[in-house]
Amino acid sequence: MAGQKTGRLIGVGTGPGDPELLTVKAVRAIEQADVLAYFAKRGTTGNARAIVKAHIRDGMEELPLHYPVTTEIEKDDDSYKSQILGFYEASADKVAEHLSAGKTVAILSEGDPLFYGSYMHLHVRLAPRFPAEVIAGVTAMSGCWSQVGLPLVQGDEILTVLPGTLSEMELARRLADTDAAVIMKVGRNLGKIRRALNTTGKLDTAVYVERGTMQNTASALLAEKPDDEAPYFAIVLVPGWPDRPEAAS
Amino acid sequence: MAGQKTGRLIGVGTGPGDPELLTVKAVRAIEQADVLAYFAKRGTTGNARAIVKAHIRDGMEELPLHYPVTTEIEKDDDSYKSQILGFYEASADKVAEHLSAGKTVAILSEGDPLFYGSYMHLHVRLAPRFPAEVIAGVTAMSGCWSQVGLPLVQGDEILTVLPGTLSEMELARRLADTDAAVIMKVGRNLGKIRRALNTTGKLDTAVYVERGTMQNTASALLAEKPDDEAPYFAIVLVPGWPDRPEAAS
Repeated sequence: MAGQKTGRLIGVGTGPGDPELLTVKAVRAIEQADVLAYFAKRGTTGNARAIVKAHIRDGMEELPLHYPVTTEIEKDDDSYKSQILGFYEASADKVAEHLSAGKTVAILSEGDPLFYGSYMHLHVRLAPRFPAEVIAGVTAMSGCWSQVGLPLVQGDEILTVLPGTLSEMELARRLADTDAAVIMKVGRNLGKIRRALNTTGKLDTAVYVERGTMQNTASALLAEKPDDEAPYFAIVLVPGWPDRPEAAS
Repeated sequence: MAGQKTGRLIGVGTGPGDPELLTVKAVRAIEQADVLAYFAKRGTTGNARAIVKAHIRDGMEELPLHYPVTTEIEKDDDSYKSQILGFYEASADKVAEHLSAGKTVAILSEGDPLFYGSYMHLHVRLAPRFPAEVIAGVTAMSGCWSQVGLPLVQGDEILTVLPGTLSEMELARRLADTDAAVIMKVGRNLGKIRRALNTTGKLDTAVYVERGTMQNTASALLAEKPDDEAPYFAIVLVPGWPDRPEAAS
């Protein structure tokens, strides 16, 4: 490699959805990158690109990485696993080509890049081979609890982040054993999540938020939400701090 | 209140320390606020103010809220509890005075305001009485794992956020029962944390980070850190995703 300039990989957290929740560092990285890469469903340019749209230069080189399958199908399925692994390998190869040519590639990641982000699949494949930097972002869960003004954890409390895909028994066991919780990947798991919260006496304080900080967001006390319809990326917040002081009147 | 204009309360997350990890929204809120409030140790203006310094107008009205005691003393102590509660009440009163006078008050909070932040103590006292908004921030833990480029949680994994103040047995029990963990409030608890990680076979992957994203940051594989000296706000990261793909060579 002597004398050959390689490019720089930058994982850029875009935050939860509100374009103003981009960090100053993320804006600068996008403005200065040679190539802008992002994951998206087939036929779309995806949420991450929409969040940063205002900062994309005219004529900037873009590298959309289109998922071969949707994220909603059964993940234990073997054909899904092999398709998605092949997709991540091929995507890493495409990015590597630009990096080898000396270009700086900013890869967008909704929320925070190393917190449940697809970016991680590129990072582990590329960071050992190229100079890499990760720009932390505001997570979806922070966006949700901030939007509804819900203090989540305080002092020496324990927070557990759970996927809604766990079994009802496992959800209930873990909800009973934590001060506060965030349940991600709600979607069609909402009925089960509701029952697990009810079992553990935590349904009354749970808050449901979909599309947090986005323009079409919605939220409700989960106990008052009349149905179990929810998008995949909805979140349920179970706050801690049960002895918080009442506001003086 | 008819006809009387009240001010607006804004909880502003400043992110983990790097001033560039401020969000665009936080910068705007600080620039437009009438009064800038922040918690700080006595005799200092504190970390949060230092992070946003470049955005403070000349002559901007500031409201420093100085802790009567340090955060390092034994929290179960009754005199600590009553002093700190009185301090939060008095601080809320000071902010309320500005809000009642129609001023917008931005209260800085390191990291994310509703995630273990002191701001929460003002929020619960003031948000029921005044228009309030919370601007999510990048958490300290996101800053830490991004700085060291450590993928933390992936797919359907469970993350547990634990205070280092738990007993060794309780730490070990919870570390054994999660995919990934973040241990906060490390300080003098580091020896105990190290033993709990060793018991659960997770010491080898644990990463120690102090002052993440700040200029004087330091990090190491915990197993290779030669001593148990650590500042209070150091963090230990225990990553998930044990079967992550190896990088192609």
